[in-house]
Amino acid sequence: MDSDASTPPAVILVEPQLAENVGACARAMLNCGLTDLRLVAPRDGWPDEAARPMASGADQVLDGARAYDTLDEATEDLQALYATTARVRDMVHRQITPRRLARELREHESRGTRCGILFGRERIGLVNDEVVRCDAVVVAPLNPEFTSLNLAQAVLLIAWEWRQAGDDTPERVFVEADSHRASGREQQIFVERLEKSLDETGFFRTEHMRDVTWRKVLSLFTRAELTDLDVRVLHGILSALEGKRMPR
Amino acid sequence: MDSDASTPPAVILVEPQLAENVGACARAMLNCGLTDLRLVAPRDGWPDEAARPMASGADQVLDGARAYDTLDEATEDLQALYATTARVRDMVHRQITPRRLARELREHESRGTRCGILFGRERIGLVNDEVVRCDAVVVAPLNPEFTSLNLAQAVLLIAWEWRQAGDDTPERVFVEADSHRASGREQQIFVERLEKSLDETGFFRTEHMRDVTWRKVLSLFTRAELTDLDVRVLHGILSALEGKRMPR
Repeated sequence: MDSDASTPPAVILVEPQLAENVGACARAMLNCGLTDLRLVAPRDGWPDEAARPMASGADQVLDGARAYDTLDEATEDLQALYATTARVRDMVHRQITPRRLARELREHESRGTRCGILFGRERIGLVNDEVVRCDAVVVAPLNPEFTSLNLAQAVLLIAWEWRQAGDDTPERVFVEADSHRASGREQQIFVERLEKSLDETGFFRTEHMRDVTWRKVLSLFTRAELTDLDVRVLHGILSALEGKRMPR
Repeated sequence: MDSDASTPPAVILVEPQLAENVGACARAMLNCGLTDLRLVAPRDGWPDEAARPMASGADQVLDGARAYDTLDEATEDLQALYATTARVRDMVHRQITPRRLARELREHESRGTRCGILFGRERIGLVNDEVVRCDAVVVAPLNPEFTSLNLAQAVLLIAWEWRQAGDDTPERVFVEADSHRASGREQQIFVERLEKSLDETGFFRTEHMRDVTWRKVLSLFTRAELTDLDVRVLHGILSALEGKRMPR
């Protein structure tokens, strides 16, 4: 255990071939708030300016990225390691989903345990000797007939799950801009005016029809979650239509 | 309502600029089991073979993709629409997270409601006139200082959430290959043999130390979730070490 609590996990790319992919990974990491990028024996060396365009401004991640000769060196300060792979072959190990990983990472962080997530080479992924040194292997339950993600997509998927596990954004909000939800009073005034106006046209042929139809109209307005602005617009529409009505 | 139940949502790319991005979107879709790709006024026309390399084999999605002149035409058979955007500007609307979207999509599907998800242009996204015709706008709670996803990353994130919402993969499994978890009996035989062997070396200096140390050793084996193969390997190691022990 370490006292440096709440360090987000490191992303460790093992022998990445293309600097463009490293750049795209940096972007996906920063999208989700991860910044500790480590490269094990990148094919074309490091730093590599070819990574920059695909990073789309995630320069802080690229500038802070470090390259190491071996996985041992890249992980020597880390206490919990996870391996990502499309498929587990010929070995005995714990296998978890990205969502479970995210929860385990957050638990580790809350105890100050420093974590790293390994991503393998573009074509062949991680080898078994790299996987067995990890606490668990993470396999995303994708379309079983088409599981191959590109490197940055794999990083995004894991980083996104990590972010979500620590996110408390309400899953549904009403964007109000310069307005607010109409009060019951505001809605009632409009609805009563509409009913009165419709009454004058003879819209409700029977009391039964009034009940049935009126419930539909009210339901429509309720579902729309009217704002004060909406109600003002509706009043305007009603006034315009009333003005056009032919005398009966 | 339509009787064609459980149709997965369509992915609608509005005025995509780069065929490479369309290809990458097709790959992300198929990774998650989505296949209905629609393009509104793609800049370079459609079909476009430049999309194929980035699709990495998701040919069935590309081959089935249709292009339309207008958003109206692309969506005329769809009953529920969602707009994805990095930020909501100057408008009143429902805003939901990708996880909430995934649940709504699954609910719609279970009732046979056909859904579509709109993704905007690479640089400027969707315009407000496109957003307001959608049931809700989907905003991913990303790092607020770096929210811009590339197109295929946005598609992956939404498609992944959709897939997860219908997935029942156990979040943690033990991959067994050609072995099985060791039975209590198998573990016990080894543990008792180890204890006896350690006793002979004088490893446990006091009964108190035996209790404390032994609990640590047992905990270690338990956490490792031993398989029958593991136990065989441990027996072999113990035999080897016993053979080397100097007579005392």
